[in-house]
Parts: sequence; C-alpha cells; structure tokens
Amino acid sequence: MSEYKTDIQIAREANKKTIQEIGAKLDIPPEHLLPYGHDKAKISAEYIQSVQGNKNGKLILVTAINPTPAGEGKTTTTVGLGDGLNSIGKKAAICIREASLGPNFGMKGGAAGGGYAQVIPMEDMNLHFTGDFHAITSAHNLLAAMIDNHIYWGNELEIDTRRIVWKRVVDMNDRALRMINVSLGGVANGFPREGGFDITVASEVMAILCLSKDIKDLETRLGDMIVAYRRDKTPVFCRDLKADGAMTVLLKDAIQPNLVQTLENNPAFVHGGPFANIAHGCNSVVATTTALKIADYVVTEAGFGADLGAEKFMNIKCRKAGIAPDAVVLVATVRAMKMNGGVAKADLGDENVDAVNNGCSNLGRHISNLKSFGVPVVVAINHFVTDTEAEVQAVKDYVAKQGSEAILCKHWAHGSAGVEELAHKVVQMADSDMANFAPLYPDEMPLFQKVETIAKRIYHADEVLADKSVREQLKTWEDQGYGHLPVCMAKTQYSFSTDPNLRGAPTGHSVPIREVRLSAGAGFVVVVCGQIMTMPGLPRKPSAEIIRFNDDGVIEGLF
Amino acid sequence: MSEYKTDIQIAREANKKTIQEIGAKLDIPPEHLLPYGHDKAKISAEYIQSVQGNKNGKLILVTAINPTPAGEGKTTTTVGLGDGLNSIGKKAAICIREASLGPNFGMKGGAAGGGYAQVIPMEDMNLHFTGDFHAITSAHNLLAAMIDNHIYWGNELEIDTRRIVWKRVVDMNDRALRMINVSLGGVANGFPREGGFDITVASEVMAILCLSKDIKDLETRLGDMIVAYRRDKTPVFCRDLKADGAMTVLLKDAIQPNLVQTLENNPAFVHGGPFANIAHGCNSVVATTTALKIADYVVTEAGFGADLGAEKFMNIKCRKAGIAPDAVVLVATVRAMKMNGGVAKADLGDENVDAVNNGCSNLGRHISNLKSFGVPVVVAINHFVTDTEAEVQAVKDYVAKQGSEAILCKHWAHGSAGVEELAHKVVQMADSDMANFAPLYPDEMPLFQKVETIAKRIYHADEVLADKSVREQLKTWEDQGYGHLPVCMAKTQYSFSTDPNLRGAPTGHSVPIREVRLSAGAGFVVVVCGQIMTMPGLPRKPSAEIIRFNDDGVIEGLF
Repeated sequence: MSEYKTDIQIAREANKKTIQEIGAKLDIPPEHLLPYGHDKAKISAEYIQSVQGNKNGKLILVTAINPTPAGEGKTTTTVGLGDGLNSIGKKAAICIREASLGPNFGMKGGAAGGGYAQVIPMEDMNLHFTGDFHAITSAHNLLAAMIDNHIYWGNELEIDTRRIVWKRVVDMNDRALRMINVSLGGVANGFPREGGFDITVASEVMAILCLSKDIKDLETRLGDMIVAYRRDKTPVFCRDLKADGAMTVLLKDAIQPNLVQTLENNPAFVHGGPFANIAHGCNSVVATTTALKIADYVVTEAGFGADLGAEKFMNIKCRKAGIAPDAVVLVATVRAMKMNGGVAKADLGDENVDAVNNGCSNLGRHISNLKSFGVPVVVAINHFVTDTEAEVQAVKDYVAKQGSEAILCKHWAHGSAGVEELAHKVVQMADSDMANFAPLYPDEMPLFQKVETIAKRIYHADEVLADKSVREQLKTWEDQGYGHLPVCMAKTQYSFSTDPNLRGAPTGHSVPIREVRLSAGAGFVVVVCGQIMTMPGLPRKPSAEIIRFNDDGVIEGLF
Repeated sequence: MSEYKTDIQIAREANKKTIQEIGAKLDIPPEHLLPYGHDKAKISAEYIQSVQGNKNGKLILVTAINPTPAGEGKTTTTVGLGDGLNSIGKKAAICIREASLGPNFGMKGGAAGGGYAQVIPMEDMNLHFTGDFHAITSAHNLLAAMIDNHIYWGNELEIDTRRIVWKRVVDMNDRALRMINVSLGGVANGFPREGGFDITVASEVMAILCLSKDIKDLETRLGDMIVAYRRDKTPVFCRDLKADGAMTVLLKDAIQPNLVQTLENNPAFVHGGPFANIAHGCNSVVATTTALKIADYVVTEAGFGADLGAEKFMNIKCRKAGIAPDAVVLVATVRAMKMNGGVAKADLGDENVDAVNNGCSNLGRHISNLKSFGVPVVVAINHFVTDTEAEVQAVKDYVAKQGSEAILCKHWAHGSAGVEELAHKVVQMADSDMANFAPLYPDEMPLFQKVETIAKRIYHADEVLADKSVREQLKTWEDQGYGHLPVCMAKTQYSFSTDPNLRGAPTGHSVPIREVRLSAGAGFVVVVCGQIMTMPGLPRKPSAEIIRFNDDGVIEGLF
C-alpha cells in the first residue's frame, strides 16, 4: 500500500456541504440555485441577470508550460489557489471545465484536480453531471436529422450532399462511427451519402455554448453556423433549416452554469468543455462572467500549455467576452523541467539540477510570451514529493532572472495551507492593477497575418507555410465578412512547434497549415497544423471493462 | 379564440408546490429526494430499500379500447383518477411513463395528460427531464462501441460481423441512421460492416431498466443480453464483453424513480418508457413497486389498447414483478365508439346513437378479455363536450349488459371533481379483494403455444401462421433455456387483428408471425406480426421548425 491516499479516497472522505451552503458563500439565494441532487446546482438565469450591475472581481488565469508525461497539475493548482484565496480571507471562486463522458471508458478517468485540491462530487462529474453534454449532443443531432430530413423532402435549399459539413456527435469513444455511409436501405431512408460522428466536445455547439453571453446570443450564434454548401459553394446556415430555435430550447438548462464545491467547501463553477485544439478550450463565458460579478477573485484555467490555452484565452475568450486577466499563474513542475532537460520518465525520481536548468528554457519562453499580453505573471511550482531543495531552487533562480517570481506550492499534499504564499502574491499582483491587457492582434488584421503573428510571437517560428488553396479560402472568408474573426490554432500541445518531440524553446521552425475551417457560429477560424482527432477510439483494454459497483455499492474503476 | 384553455395554458397557470411538499404527502423525507430543480426529484435507493417491509397498497390498471384517431385519454384518465382518489381522502399516487425526446421535434409534442388532468412540469418532461433516457442512450452506445472495439483489437470472442444484433441508439427521429455502414475509412477505423440506429426507447436497455427490481437485477439482466452471434450461431453476451458493470454505473441514477406532481399537487411517479410493440410498454417496476409501498392506491397505465398493453402488463410486468392489479379501469369514449361504429372523424360531432351501439363490440370484447385475467373491470367514459346524453346512456346500457358498470368522467374539464364517482367505485372494487389474478399462460408452456393462447383468447383469431424457420427458432431458444420466457407481441394497436383497418371485434382472422426476436436480458421473446418501426423519421414540416423561445422567454411550439 502507498503511504498516500488516492484521489478518490480523499474525495470520498470529504466533509461535503449542501449546495445551498456553498451558494450562500457567494450570496446566491437558495431559490436561484436549481439543485441536481444535494451537491450540485445550476444558477438561474434570473439571478445572473440580477447581478449584472455588480462590479467585476479580479480574474486570474492559471496556465502551464507545455505538457509532458510527467504531469503539471494545472487544474490541481487552479483548485488549490481558489482554496488558498478563501483561506486567506478572500471571497474567491474557481471556474473550470466539465469532463467528457466518453474518454472515461477508455483510459483512466479524468478527475477534477488531485490530492487535497479537488472538486467534488467526482463521480457525478465524471458521469452525466447535470446533463449539459447530453443536451449539446441532442441539439447537435437534431440539426443533423433536420438536414437529412430537408433533403429527403425535396431539398428546397439545394444542399450539395457532398458538401455537408455538419456531422453527428456522440459522447463516446467510438472509432467505428468516424466515417460512415448514411441513408442506406432504399427510398424510405433518404439519399445515401458519406457522414460521420465526432465526440460531443468537438461540436461547434459546445464552443458556442461556451462563448455565448446569454441565451439570446446563443440562439443567434447557432443560427450563424454553416452546415453545408450548395453546388455553387454558397453556404447553407443552421438558420436556413429553422433549427436554431429548437436547439436553443434544448440548451436552456445547459447554458446555466453549474456550481459545485472544492474539498474545502469553496465554490467551484464547472461549466462547458470545448476541445482545446479545434475550439478554444476554456470553461464558459457565462460561468466566468457570473463568477466575476459575485466573487472578488475568480481563478480559471485554459486547456493545454500557455502557447495554445493562454493564447486562445486571451485572443478568443477575453476578446469575445470583454474580460481581461488581472494576473496569470504559470504552472511548472521540477519533473517537467527535467523532462524538457532530457531526462527519461523512469529517471525523474533522481535529483538532476543540470537537467532542471537545461529544461527551464520552455518555462522562460512562456513567461515572456505571457508578459507580451500586458499581464503580470507568477510561476507556481507544483510540488512533487521527489523534488529536492536544490532542484526547486534552480527553478526559482531561473525565474528570478526572467524578472518574475516562482513560488513553491504544496496544495496537492496540504490543500489551501500549501498554497497561501501563492495566494498572497496573486492578490498583490491583481490588486495592484498592474495588468494592461491587450490581445495579440487587432480584429481588422487579415486572417493569414493573424496566424503569422501567433506563429512568430508565440511559437517563435520563422514562417507559416500554406498552400494556395488555404490562402484563397481565407481570402474568400474575408470577402464573405469573416475577416474580423480571431484564429483558433489546432496544433500539438507538446511543443511550441508542430513537432511534438521538439521540447524546450525551439526556434527556426516552420508552421505548416494543413487545413482551415470556419466556425461561423462560435466565431473563429480554425487553423489546423497537424493531425487532429475529433473521434477517439477505445484502447485494447478499455477501462469500461473494470468499471462497476463493488459489493459495498461503491463505484470501482472510474478513477 | 376557443372558449377552452389549451393544455399548456392550464399547466402554466398551475399552483405548483415544491417537490419536497409533494414527497411529504407520501412521507418521503427531504433527504431522500434527490432534487432536479425545485419541481422534480428522484427517490433515493436507500429510501426504497427502507420501505420494503411495508404492506402493499392497491394497484389499479388503466387501459383502453383499441385507439382510434378520435383519442381515448388513457393518461388523462390515469391522472384524473389519481387526483380523484386523493380528493376523496385516499393516499394515492399515479405511475406513468416518461416521454421520448425525439418525437417532440416531429409532430406536436406529447403532453402528460390533458385539460385539468395533467402532470407538470410539462416542458421539462418533454425535454431532458431528469436525464434517464440520455443515460440509457449512453449505456447502450458504450456497449456498441465496445463490440466494434473488441473486433478491432483482434476479435477474441470470434464475433461474426454479419451477425451483430446490437445496434446503436439516439433519442431523435433520424431516418438517415436506420441503415448505415460503419467503420469505413481504412485500417484505423476498424472492419467495415452494416449497422444502424434505433430510437432510444426501442433499446433493450430501456426494457431492462423498466423490468429490473433493483440495481443488482439490472446488472444481471444487462449481462444476459445477446449482442451478436458467432459463425456457429452461438450467442455472444454483453457479459462476454465485460460491458455490464460500466453500463450499470451509467444507469445508477436512471434506475431511481422520478417524482413530480399533478395539477392538483398529488404525487406522480414518471419513470421509464419502453416501446409498446417490441417491448412491454409500461412504466418501471421500481416506480410501481415503490409507489405500492408508500401509497394506499396506485394508479398506473399500459401502452396502446388492452389487447396489447393490458395483456403485456399482466403477462410480462406483473409476472416478473410479482404484483397483481386489484382493479382495472377500461377507458372508452363516445367518439371512439362512433368511429368503431363506422362514423368518419369529420362527423364525430353529430349525435349518432346507432353508431355508438354498433361500435360497442370493441369495448365488450376488451371487458371480457380483462375479466379472463380474474380482475374486476369498470369502464370510464372519458367525456367530450360534444357527447350527448343519449350516446353516453347507450354506452352505459351496453356495459351493464356485459355485467360491468360504465361511469361518466369529466376530469378533463373539472379535474378531480369530475371523477369522484369513478374513484369511489375503484376503491370499492379494490378494497373488496374481488381480484383473483392469474396470467394467461404458465411459464412452462412452449413459446409457440403462448402466442397461440394470446391470439385465440385475446385477439379471438382462428390461427397463428408461422414459417418453419420461425418455429425452429422458437424451438432453438427453448433448447437454450429460454422457453420459460413470456412472449411480447408486436402488432398493430388499432385492431384486435393484424389489420389496422379491422375495427370492432373481428373473428375468423389469422395472426401471421413475420419474425421473432429474443430479448434475453429483458426476459421476453418478441413476436413481430407486422411492420414495426424502431427509428421514426421527421415529417415534411417538423415541429422543430417552430419550437423556440418567444420574446417573453416562453417556449413556443413544443406542445
């Protein structure tokens, strides 16, 4: 037996409070909490409306270095910092993403944080939670059914069945559905064509739910989605099929943010979970802006490393929502520095200060990138028990040389008590109003130039490579009025470059664009720079095989 | 404008109580109600366990004549009778089925009752409700993904990909998914094969959820499901794929019954919704047996007319659950009698006593059929405003000649006040312990003979026609140990015969079996005697096109 408790053991020992008690910490009256069981609730749209006049609290973004197999603990740090802020007497809340159901049945499930920095109820959050993703699946598939139904009844809109870009979705890892032929079997079943399924989190409906200000905005964006093209390549919109109203009705509960709690009974908004490659990878705008109205400090995170997650948070989410971070926490670990410095995973337990020093270049570049957005940055060293003092000191010294501060955080082992120093530092940074946030590029910059700006200033690449067809497609969208949109980069999260094996802070590389996609409802142009998988498969031994209730009625295998 | 309010107008004017107040009427403590918003809750498994020692209340089945386009109002009568029993001072609850999501986007949506006999909240019940159907969809599709994944990784179980009988499901009317080819696109996506989707309510998982006693029983039944056959035609079970544990975990909340309220604030269990053709068409056993433990009178209904719904209620649900009806209410309308008597729908507003008399043979046969199960029967005439006194009297006289009583009920217009006479009659019948219930056939009767028994004694047919292949299939299942199962008839609901246009009480007809299917987990053999549709399509003008939030934030078009 390990000397440490597992995440699920810790979570099950938690002294949970009712969701009404958690809501009371943010002065939410019980009638405005729509409960789902005793420990989850949605916050009513009426209440959200009623607090719009409030002053905004401070917004803190938690991001990280490029992920390594060593693990960084971005969510764990987000949760820990939220508890730390509460522990030093601040009215603070966190905002994180919901988990996708399907992947839990493949590999070991995704917990929300870890150790003594977790969000609960973990089991429900890894299963159906409050049904948001099911609602998105239904809304998405209603539109798909309406497209084929429209064609079946005469195709008045003249949809080219070869150019339908709206697939179906399911929240399951099911590779058999990636490419399918539909409408087989004769006259009664429609016109055969090629189709396919993505996993629900890859749906544009998910991205829209997460970027919409309110339900009216949601309906407009749904209507704006392009679902197909005609033979003359003119777009057919969701609105043309009259699906936007019913889809909005299906999403009426899903757009209301979910409230749960941390192990230390502090409020946690868990809402939305768009892909971090073909979408922007942040929790919902509604959750973040609501939290800002009712908490003094709001800690949130973005997907993947800072080159993808923080960049999109700044250039897409903040731009669209009219919000700005007051401080950024960049999470790093000694182990990840060692991996960036060339140490194999098996050897991470051995002290290796030189490797730490060698690996810090990745950290350094993220610091300077983040500062270029005009926001103050502090580094959180998420402590692992094998870290030595000398290794930690090496990171601290390196960060100090970059003009920032690195703070050792032990929230995984000690909860809020392990992260108070970081909490104080974050409060000091946020309250000083040092931030002078600006996105990296203006709306009016041409689309290709936006990509070049990100590639050069964030990835530190020399050039962006793109076929004529890609450049022409971007031009066409500019002509159609989509030139003002931000770009959403889809590239590997493991490197600043498009080569996942290129660790550290590479220079001199190129960024090849394979494909571009327009998410006209979500409001961004996806720039695909590598293989992206929108429907995962199950492994040889899926964890579904061991998930079950044991004889004590306790779920096994999900975590 | 009509002088009558619409169902949705009435529902929106309802004086709703909190679900905790509704639970209190059945002495359910608030901590055992898992709320979904303020007006819906699931009843905890612990509470259900705790009341198992209670004495059972009386069970009243509401069934109907063969449905006609005139409408019968079976659910409306169930709701009205529940309110009527409460109104005369009895502790009563109703048990009805949940609505399927998909069909709401096709034709006008399915309300739960009508007029002043409705269950609320109507909007949520027609949308995601408490997520039960989404959970069933997820569990079903997890198994589907695990089948193809198993084949992808080497097919150790030697599944014949031509003989996979487990399709996928979606709760949407989507004809394009009826027949598809899956796993296209190359090596990474698996082995191409034919597949398809049914609508969620057609899933065997739905039938199992509705027939399981508890979560242990659910897991066993899921494991028992046959998903495919090998080349040698031996079955491959869900259990062989190790999917049953994870599916059970996905269904942990879904198996807990839902509690809502009627317009008169009386408790309503709304749980489960299996097809009434390829499944048994009743709400869940867990809901009914729980209601029986905590209410003195439980009113429930079964799908379609009594020849299908009541027969399956008796021979499948009651047999499996070890329960028995104490009284049966047979719903009829003057309008339906007239249609059975040959009147066209457009002429139903005109008095026609002769047609009523001619049409009563359908009613008469249902009365005698029901009595053959050993249960007392009362006829409820669900009043329509166009009914004349002479027409109503004709029905009453006819029923009296059959040795039963017909009572005029005005719950649609007056709620409980319109149905108190029926309530008193039902109490008198149930309390008299007149019922001496027995199913129609014993477990040990051979399968084909079970079909013949139903065909001859319920449908009053001369013979059952079946190809040699069908008879041999039934024999094979008997040899494999499935001979003790009841049969589940899938035939038209519009006639005692297999011809939907043959109204009244036909004799001399044949019942041809087209196909038989084994639902080894649900525990019945489906006998298909006509076209059955397990994936509906959308109409030319789907109601989804008009469903939306209006400017007042109120949902339009859903009802």
